[in-house]
Amino acid sequence: MINQDSIVALATPSGAGAIAIIRISGSEAIQIGNSVFKSIKNKDLTKQKTHTLHLGHIVDNEKALDEVLVSLFKGPNSYTGEDTIEISCHGSTYIQQQIIQLLLRNGCRMADAGEFTLRAFLNGKLDLSQAEAVADLINSDNEASHQIAMQQMRGGFSNEIAKLREELLNFASLIELELDFAEEDVEFADRIQFHELVNRIEFVLKRLIDSFAVGNVIKNGIPVAIVGEPNVGKSTLLNALLNEERAIVSDIAGTTRDTIEDELVIGGIGFRFIDTAGIRETKDVVESIGIQKTFEKIDQAQMVLYLVDGCQLSVDGKLDNLLLEINKTQNQYPQKALVVIINKKDMISDETLSLIQNKLVAYQDELSTVNRKLSTIYISAKEKQGVEELKNQLLSFVNTGALRNNETIVTNTRHYDSLLKALDEIQKVKHGLETNLSSDLLALDIKEALYQFGLITGQVSNDELLGNIFANFCIGK
Amino acid sequence: MINQDSIVALATPSGAGAIAIIRISGSEAIQIGNSVFKSIKNKDLTKQKTHTLHLGHIVDNEKALDEVLVSLFKGPNSYTGEDTIEISCHGSTYIQQQIIQLLLRNGCRMADAGEFTLRAFLNGKLDLSQAEAVADLINSDNEASHQIAMQQMRGGFSNEIAKLREELLNFASLIELELDFAEEDVEFADRIQFHELVNRIEFVLKRLIDSFAVGNVIKNGIPVAIVGEPNVGKSTLLNALLNEERAIVSDIAGTTRDTIEDELVIGGIGFRFIDTAGIRETKDVVESIGIQKTFEKIDQAQMVLYLVDGCQLSVDGKLDNLLLEINKTQNQYPQKALVVIINKKDMISDETLSLIQNKLVAYQDELSTVNRKLSTIYISAKEKQGVEELKNQLLSFVNTGALRNNETIVTNTRHYDSLLKALDEIQKVKHGLETNLSSDLLALDIKEALYQFGLITGQVSNDELLGNIFANFCIGK
Repeated sequence: MINQDSIVALATPSGAGAIAIIRISGSEAIQIGNSVFKSIKNKDLTKQKTHTLHLGHIVDNEKALDEVLVSLFKGPNSYTGEDTIEISCHGSTYIQQQIIQLLLRNGCRMADAGEFTLRAFLNGKLDLSQAEAVADLINSDNEASHQIAMQQMRGGFSNEIAKLREELLNFASLIELELDFAEEDVEFADRIQFHELVNRIEFVLKRLIDSFAVGNVIKNGIPVAIVGEPNVGKSTLLNALLNEERAIVSDIAGTTRDTIEDELVIGGIGFRFIDTAGIRETKDVVESIGIQKTFEKIDQAQMVLYLVDGCQLSVDGKLDNLLLEINKTQNQYPQKALVVIINKKDMISDETLSLIQNKLVAYQDELSTVNRKLSTIYISAKEKQGVEELKNQLLSFVNTGALRNNETIVTNTRHYDSLLKALDEIQKVKHGLETNLSSDLLALDIKEALYQFGLITGQVSNDELLGNIFANFCIGK
Repeated sequence: MINQDSIVALATPSGAGAIAIIRISGSEAIQIGNSVFKSIKNKDLTKQKTHTLHLGHIVDNEKALDEVLVSLFKGPNSYTGEDTIEISCHGSTYIQQQIIQLLLRNGCRMADAGEFTLRAFLNGKLDLSQAEAVADLINSDNEASHQIAMQQMRGGFSNEIAKLREELLNFASLIELELDFAEEDVEFADRIQFHELVNRIEFVLKRLIDSFAVGNVIKNGIPVAIVGEPNVGKSTLLNALLNEERAIVSDIAGTTRDTIEDELVIGGIGFRFIDTAGIRETKDVVESIGIQKTFEKIDQAQMVLYLVDGCQLSVDGKLDNLLLEINKTQNQYPQKALVVIINKKDMISDETLSLIQNKLVAYQDELSTVNRKLSTIYISAKEKQGVEELKNQLLSFVNTGALRNNETIVTNTRHYDSLLKALDEIQKVKHGLETNLSSDLLALDIKEALYQFGLITGQVSNDELLGNIFANFCIGK
């Protein structure tokens, strides 16, 4: 079934570093590695034990390309389950290219994206959701997404699905048996027990489906719209939020990552800040296009921060305008969490401050009569006052309960889709049980539910599905 | 003498890839690695053999950070000569940071730039010029610089220096002995043999010093000034030169490097193309500044290409202007290789072409009377005609003889400097021998020459020297 030709790829990031790793996997991996490797101790790689390391040179005819360390793994005790060689060479791109070209000339072919992990899946080293977690793990850039990917990679999610599938499979076979004895009108499957199982499965599926709301935003970062005019202190605020996290990594030279502006990790969870202008009432065409855009951005966000320069609020009408804007936003998006952040509090006169507070409190009272809420925070981004409070506020909107309790969280759209379909089928089964549906029709719905479970773990798969999944991997994994 | 604390660093390029390598070296490296590693087979790392690989998890208390492969090396059989652990983890920057932070909390400290290689030097695994070759190897981006770095790393250069040093040391000790018996006026060191040796050393030093001219440009790329007005086809030409080289690597996804514009590798040797405008006679102040700049750029170049649009040369006076420019350049830089490239030859009328050819040949004849030369090439960059000829022309100006014959080539300014000083001292010794200088004064000059040899290989070194050398390394090497 599985193509055992030997594939090669660079497994470390491209670019120059101290070392780079070139990986070969396949039935001929060790022979091919041996054909270009000259051990300093004249060792024959094909005669070495698995999980051993060997120093020597990569040689192209007589010419030494590099001094390298070769790691040797014998299938099935390797990542792919096949014989595998990893060449640790000096990290120049020139050397990487030369060695890969040499290996291609000696019988390897370039690996496709994710092909090493695909082989691990095909060889039964990982199930499909575990394989997908490998890509998630590599892409994880904060504690929460890392934790979810690790749990999934270690089989947490698969086990939960596999258990449900097995129980359902038991009943399915009993129902199938009834079909064989259809004339005799027997019931091998205890309908009460089966109903209980279906209820339990429904419950678990619903919990998993619900977890996707959290899982998806944790994986992709929680979108937060900042509504704020220029110069209200937006970048100072983002820096204040960022700096604290940065301090942790700043002394680890070589590991500081490029900052993607407006993407921050707070309390281990990623937030994506989306910059917008204001939304005040206007008759200006150009400006109303801007307002339209602001609404579109708020649309994508899960929460909205109104950042205002407190000093400006003493100007006549400014504060009332702000309340109008907020009201408009709340009417348009009653479900979105909304926080008003009064910045530059260290520079606001006491008089203005109490004016603002009174107005805001009065507005909050008004809201409470229609069961709505508005959070307010007073900060000085420059002096880093109130930043901690804001962080807690942001985190309070994220349902991290499941994360804290280490429950299974669904992050993958494909899994979510299969779970929704499985739930649909399970609910059909349940309805069938309640209306005494015939065994043959019941069996059809159960089969479909089993099929959806199988799609998640890969017990059911096809080339197109696998192609789609592994195309999203990087090459070398 | 050597600080044995355990150092840690990321050894692969920063950024996301399939895998990343974190390296630990020091007397506690294996214990520290063991304290954060949970083998899937419950293996104790401190009890494993050298050069073995172990699968398991990096755990922070009970929390698994990643599934990893650990490579174990026991000193002195490691790169640094100390106990060493390499952790191959999933390539997310988050995971890299988490593991490094965990190791820092468990007794490691961040490695300085080049500190692993510094330790290899201090532990006698490499001499100093070999250590420097490691950095050159990582930075090598073409065949020639790679070949030189490999030769140096494998000890070619060190051996040559060490041999000279040893022979000189022999005589030095004989001369020193003479000093002990100064009253008796004996000569232990045969002056004729010594003179022969000094001549031989002088010859080798001169060859090495001469090789720096080639070595330095090969390491840094050979600077080539292109004199050419806009639209004469400069970028088409560079693309034509580049494309062929690119074709070799284009099918290796994941290894294509970023192209630095105007840096090309031709026949394994790097060329840096420096863009300049023309240098025609002018009274315009602004334009004469431009001409000044052109001259400055030609100044830095090792060869000059005059790229002209052949079609334009039919315009009255254009061809004569070109010859004037060329003449001016040759007068200013009689030593620089100069090539006139007539582009768009496919679009030049036969009439114009023979006009150009006649004028150029006449000019070349004129030059030959003053023993000067001018090369001319007719190309069509667009149609890729004459590109191969141009490549050969460029390569013909580089003295690749030493490279082809695998002779030792000096590329390092520090080595060059020491070689110059050593030559100076050796010439003093030679002069001293010829003028019957007293043994004590002779001994002083010999000592100084020995000192310079020692600086190259590191038999003589100090903290400042080492600091300067290893500061240029990347972290993790």
